[in-house]
Amino acid sequence: MFEYNHILAAVDYTVEARLVLQHARSLAERYGADLTLLHVVELMPVVGGIESFSYVDLYADQPELIERAENDLKKLAAEEQLSGTNLKILTGVPKVEITAYARDNDIDLIVVGSHGRHGISLILGSTANAVLHHAKCDVLAVRV
Amino acid sequence: MFEYNHILAAVDYTVEARLVLQHARSLAERYGADLTLLHVVELMPVVGGIESFSYVDLYADQPELIERAENDLKKLAAEEQLSGTNLKILTGVPKVEITAYARDNDIDLIVVGSHGRHGISLILGSTANAVLHHAKCDVLAVRV
Repeated sequence: MFEYNHILAAVDYTVEARLVLQHARSLAERYGADLTLLHVVELMPVVGGIESFSYVDLYADQPELIERAENDLKKLAAEEQLSGTNLKILTGVPKVEITAYARDNDIDLIVVGSHGRHGISLILGSTANAVLHHAKCDVLAVRV
Repeated sequence: MFEYNHILAAVDYTVEARLVLQHARSLAERYGADLTLLHVVELMPVVGGIESFSYVDLYADQPELIERAENDLKKLAAEEQLSGTNLKILTGVPKVEITAYARDNDIDLIVVGSHGRHGISLILGSTANAVLHHAKCDVLAVRV
């Protein structure tokens, strides 16, 4: 019988994060699977002068912003009865970081919100769609 | 606690159908959810003369092909220990039929293979991707 062993919930701080967490928690409990909550602090795009589109990591020199993200994730986890869960903060482009983390940590199911169009995703396409294309494991898109 | 009550497994007859069935069956058992297996007999595109791209339902007058599809689905279900499951055959464009069936039957999770590029999907994009965009419920893309 097929089962999931390690579930990754990719959460942002929109209202849909709670639904993603609730669905991921439910699945982890049903399967007795490990659960990791991942939040990606998104890189901001800037348009240079002559040079075209490029990225700048606004957060690289601002550790207090990473710390704030960590605290926000801890708070969210606690509010959803997930205090004992593995929490992870990364910086970068969400679809890249989510799929890379999943690949490197033997994740067999990624849970992501299906309306995650915000920030750079508005330009590059939804995170759910991108994760679906790039992930090497199952992807559950939670409808918000 | 969140739970799934009615799961729809969208299956074709490629090798990935078995994986989709196995994951859907596992989820249905964990949640005690109803499970419906849906196969969409795909419409075939033809290119007319002066008229541009249009559809013709090759199966409309060929009930024996529908019957064959039903028998194939029954056989597949039996082989995957899903004989008692609700089986459904529809004709049309898979993404349209899958999402419409889900909407009309209070499905809360659609399970679909993530590599379903075949037939008209080669032209119009993968079924998983289209279902993700159009479904009003959660979508699980099973990686093959």
